Amino acid sequence: MANPTAAICVIGDEILSGRTKDKNIGWLAEQLTEIGIQLVEARIIADVKDTIIRHISDLSASNDYVFTSGGIGPTHDDITTVSVAEAFGVAVERNEEAMRRLEQHYMGTEIVLNEVRKKMADIPVGASLIDNPVSAAPGFCLNNVYVMAGVPSIMQSMFECLAPSLQGGTAPTRLTVQCETGEGNVAHILQQISEKYNAISVGSYPWFKPGQFGTAVVLTGLDKNTVKSAADELWKLVKKAGYKAETPV
Amino acid sequence: MANPTAAICVIGDEILSGRTKDKNIGWLAEQLTEIGIQLVEARIIADVKDTIIRHISDLSASNDYVFTSGGIGPTHDDITTVSVAEAFGVAVERNEEAMRRLEQHYMGTEIVLNEVRKKMADIPVGASLIDNPVSAAPGFCLNNVYVMAGVPSIMQSMFECLAPSLQGGTAPTRLTVQCETGEGNVAHILQQISEKYNAISVGSYPWFKPGQFGTAVVLTGLDKNTVKSAADELWKLVKKAGYKAETPV
Repeated sequence: MANPTAAICVIGDEILSGRTKDKNIGWLAEQLTEIGIQLVEARIIADVKDTIIRHISDLSASNDYVFTSGGIGPTHDDITTVSVAEAFGVAVERNEEAMRRLEQHYMGTEIVLNEVRKKMADIPVGASLIDNPVSAAPGFCLNNVYVMAGVPSIMQSMFECLAPSLQGGTAPTRLTVQCETGEGNVAHILQQISEKYNAISVGSYPWFKPGQFGTAVVLTGLDKNTVKSAADELWKLVKKAGYKAETPV
Repeated sequence: MANPTAAICVIGDEILSGRTKDKNIGWLAEQLTEIGIQLVEARIIADVKDTIIRHISDLSASNDYVFTSGGIGPTHDDITTVSVAEAFGVAVERNEEAMRRLEQHYMGTEIVLNEVRKKMADIPVGASLIDNPVSAAPGFCLNNVYVMAGVPSIMQSMFECLAPSLQGGTAPTRLTVQCETGEGNVAHILQQISEKYNAISVGSYPWFKPGQFGTAVVLTGLDKNTVKSAADELWKLVKKAGYKAETPV
């Protein structure tokens, strides 16, 4: 059976301007792969309500899971919550449990839980909260959309809280064959293996170091034995063609 | 007049699996911003022909420019060229000039320009070549789509070659006001400035250090004087509200 699919949607003008470099897609991609959820697409979009609504609707309809990061803070440009609510036609209301968490978090600090900060307790009706161990203000899950903060440390802590609730699949097996030759010399072997084992993805990644170059061939699939057979066969063919290669690892 | 818009499309299973971290979006975002092209969206998609065709058609229709990276090497999983050609209904043919460059590049090396490597000279009919100072195999431009390599050093060298041919707009002016307080305390001021100067984007980026926290407020716009006025007014309002803030820089 195929693994469940996911899309990531990073929301933030600061990423599109190049001022801030996204770190969330790469981290989430690794996490999802490990628990057997196949990331099929990632998008980075602007802080514009209609844009967010359009992409969330599109990605939610075509994937099992959607994970968003960014735009759930207290300022005027934090419009992810209202936009996701509108994408599903539900209202946003002040959530009692979220308020309780904010009150507890700010209690005994210099920070005043003013009207602007209370906005972080506004959650779409029917959504469940995602814990935020770093700064209390929760994310939420509405239908198949998981809305998280943009700051990487907060997003990561949120994802670790919600991960046990996800229905993952089979973690893929991945084997690498390091070939001491250019990919143009082994491409015909890669194609042959790719055609023979059509449930296996065969990736080819050339690398260069001063005075050296080679190709890392990465075989990935859900069935361990098939990946092992394909990698062994590929390794033998590369050797037979006269090139050095390390045994699959 | 508004600046021209662009989308980035990164093509590669290795990014979606988390094995490789994308470095092209952040770099390109900065370059585009500097020459007055507004990046409105970035997508990371899989090495699947129908997927590539669908996204390229979609992004090409809705933006002035589309920049792709990945999938133009010699192996079986390098299907960007045929997919982009098919998106525009044109054939792919072996390009004489591209062949000449590959021959020159491999001449006198141990590397044989075999049939597989010659595939890198296959270019859609009617496309213009993008120079590749690093490894010769060219990218190409078809209609408003610029197809580049995925390896960051090669992609960057290609973009630097093609950049002078792009019709940029006004490079935005960006001023930052560092506020020594949480964003929840200045959010009402940010909103006020954002509403008053609606051609200015007002971004709010909280930061934390041990024992310290603050908010970087970033004002961006195409008219220098308006950005300056907005930043000065914001700075004065933050001071008036009783918080420390540095003059706009």
